[in-house]
Amino acid sequence: MSRVVKLAVISGDGIGPEVVAQAERVLDAVTEHSDVTFEKTPFSLGAARYLETGDTLTDADLESIRAHDAILLGAVGGVPGDPRLKDANIERGLLLKLRFELDHYVNLRPSKLFAGAPGPLANPGQIDFVVVREGTEGPYVGNGGSIRTGTPHEIANETSVNTAFGVERVVRYAFDLAERRRKKLTLVHKTNVLVHAGAIWKRVVDQVASEHPDVTVDYLHVDAATIFLVTDPARFDVIVTDNLFGDILTDLAGAVTGGIGLAASGNINPDGAFPSMFEPVHGSAPDIAGQHKADPTAAILSVALLLDHLGLRDEAARVQRAVEQDIAGRGEPRSTGEIGDAVIALLQA
Amino acid sequence: MSRVVKLAVISGDGIGPEVVAQAERVLDAVTEHSDVTFEKTPFSLGAARYLETGDTLTDADLESIRAHDAILLGAVGGVPGDPRLKDANIERGLLLKLRFELDHYVNLRPSKLFAGAPGPLANPGQIDFVVVREGTEGPYVGNGGSIRTGTPHEIANETSVNTAFGVERVVRYAFDLAERRRKKLTLVHKTNVLVHAGAIWKRVVDQVASEHPDVTVDYLHVDAATIFLVTDPARFDVIVTDNLFGDILTDLAGAVTGGIGLAASGNINPDGAFPSMFEPVHGSAPDIAGQHKADPTAAILSVALLLDHLGLRDEAARVQRAVEQDIAGRGEPRSTGEIGDAVIALLQA
Ligand SMILES: CC(C)[C@H](C(=O)O)[C@@H](O)C(=O)O
Ligand SMILES: CC(C)[C@H](C(=O)O)[C@@H](O)C(=O)O
Repeated sequence: MSRVVKLAVISGDGIGPEVVAQAERVLDAVTEHSDVTFEKTPFSLGAARYLETGDTLTDADLESIRAHDAILLGAVGGVPGDPRLKDANIERGLLLKLRFELDHYVNLRPSKLFAGAPGPLANPGQIDFVVVREGTEGPYVGNGGSIRTGTPHEIANETSVNTAFGVERVVRYAFDLAERRRKKLTLVHKTNVLVHAGAIWKRVVDQVASEHPDVTVDYLHVDAATIFLVTDPARFDVIVTDNLFGDILTDLAGAVTGGIGLAASGNINPDGAFPSMFEPVHGSAPDIAGQHKADPTAAILSVALLLDHLGLRDEAARVQRAVEQDIAGRGEPRSTGEIGDAVIALLQA
Repeated sequence: MSRVVKLAVISGDGIGPEVVAQAERVLDAVTEHSDVTFEKTPFSLGAARYLETGDTLTDADLESIRAHDAILLGAVGGVPGDPRLKDANIERGLLLKLRFELDHYVNLRPSKLFAGAPGPLANPGQIDFVVVREGTEGPYVGNGGSIRTGTPHEIANETSVNTAFGVERVVRYAFDLAERRRKKLTLVHKTNVLVHAGAIWKRVVDQVASEHPDVTVDYLHVDAATIFLVTDPARFDVIVTDNLFGDILTDLAGAVTGGIGLAASGNINPDGAFPSMFEPVHGSAPDIAGQHKADPTAAILSVALLLDHLGLRDEAARVQRAVEQDIAGRGEPRSTGEIGDAVIALLQA
């Protein structure tokens, strides 16, 4: 019984293509003798495409991506300050548009300090938690605007939108995940200031908690959460939080677990109505693009998340293990391709 | 020529009164032989007062506070989860109300890693920066609301309000500060997502920058800024940012510079139309209240900021120096009072 997975591959800009190339090699290697085949379609999207054609993400692109089972994305975004990209906003027009249009309401970001990974903390402890970041609401909805723009009387507003529907589904996902882990869930918000948005998150978490009596629930204001991420990150198991707080916490979490070069993420539509998308947390890093210096580990770990999402748990575990072994044995700096080689060698060992 | 400063003292809740007691002693000691006299008026405000009288901050309180030259505040807030405080929201009704009513548009938060201070980073480097956090706008304005509240169809919104007027005045303050420091200013925002709010900050910073050609300006997204705060905090000199991002960054900054027990802040109305307010960044910590364990250093350093704000630069520098000496010599844990004693002894030495 063989299975075909249609995978859309968006390599993107900067180091995106370099790290995705290694991630694809690892995907090929781990599925080589299995009965699952990945049928890959490359999509040329990102700043480079915008500069060539003026398009960011057309309806046709979207339709064709929707016809896939999953997406692997490298990184999108041009050189900061490039005047030709002044009006592009690749982030909103491409990356966030994909997350919103494909209803990626779970932005899943595991944080684990692997043995041997360098980190900035003197005493990090055993870091192993997952941030379940809401992906389709909050301050990310794009409900902003300004009047008297560019004048001394300008007023610019941004509205965070939070719905019971949107909060409940991601909170349920987080509780289910906590049940399969160490059964601890931390809600992070800023309920004392953002009282309305905070109240809906608090209420939903309290309600869903009553269905999960064995999950220990606590709450932290986002400011306090950043403190614990550097003083006691081992306390966390599952963190559930809104789109913006999740963005901030996961970059910080990436930093304390050895750098954003190791942090993978999944933009997941758990209902399966749309393809889920797997991407490193890092950006396109145009400053080091083309130098074969980028660490492909985050992209490779994103492949592990992809495999897991597709129910290919053995394959996911093998990739994860190979990466952990590779990190444990790290010495001299290696090129992007050398890291890919090493992970593949470990996979095949 | 003697000068009288009318100081409103809001000790508040939890550890507030303990740390303020030491801060007041230090203030008395450093002004003992000078020709400035502090006339202190205690204000009973906070969760305790609310529980007694049902009042958070009355018009009369506010009027009487306004008649002072400055405010020293400890910390306000009751025991988290106390059912009697369910509808109180001391933070919005008291602390934020003071900041907004007294037009504290500069929330000044220095971060310095003192020699001898414990910190979570393995290689912190020379940390010495100031966050200039906007204090009267952004997502803190309280422009939120919900419909169908408490139902599965609830929608809860929060609007961040940003004005050219509000942004420009705090940005100007930050540039002036950078001119007196290492001449480096970093704007932190999330311009790629919060495009309207981000654009006004970016535009104003660019405009004011053109009047300060000797200040080096850069920009970081808030998520990236948290990474640098743990990997390379020494890179920062002056950070200017909005109310919410400033809240998050300064707790993290407090953590990396030895803990929130050392972090002082000033809520400043530079125009002098209203009294400025000085307070530790930490909260009321009801769990350790009354145990004489709280570190009064943040409150004492807030006195240094107060003195500096009043133009009493020598006195400010003496307090600052005494605290630095005290931290450098720290050994066994000491009580709140013992730390106060030690700083006073160093002041008088
Ligand atoms: C590029 C940007 C829009 C994006 C975000 O803010 O979500 C990124 O920071 C991330 O975390 O994936
Ligand atoms: C208590 C709270 C309202 C406050 C804030 O969010 O500003 C605090 O965290 C601070 O930083 O002073």
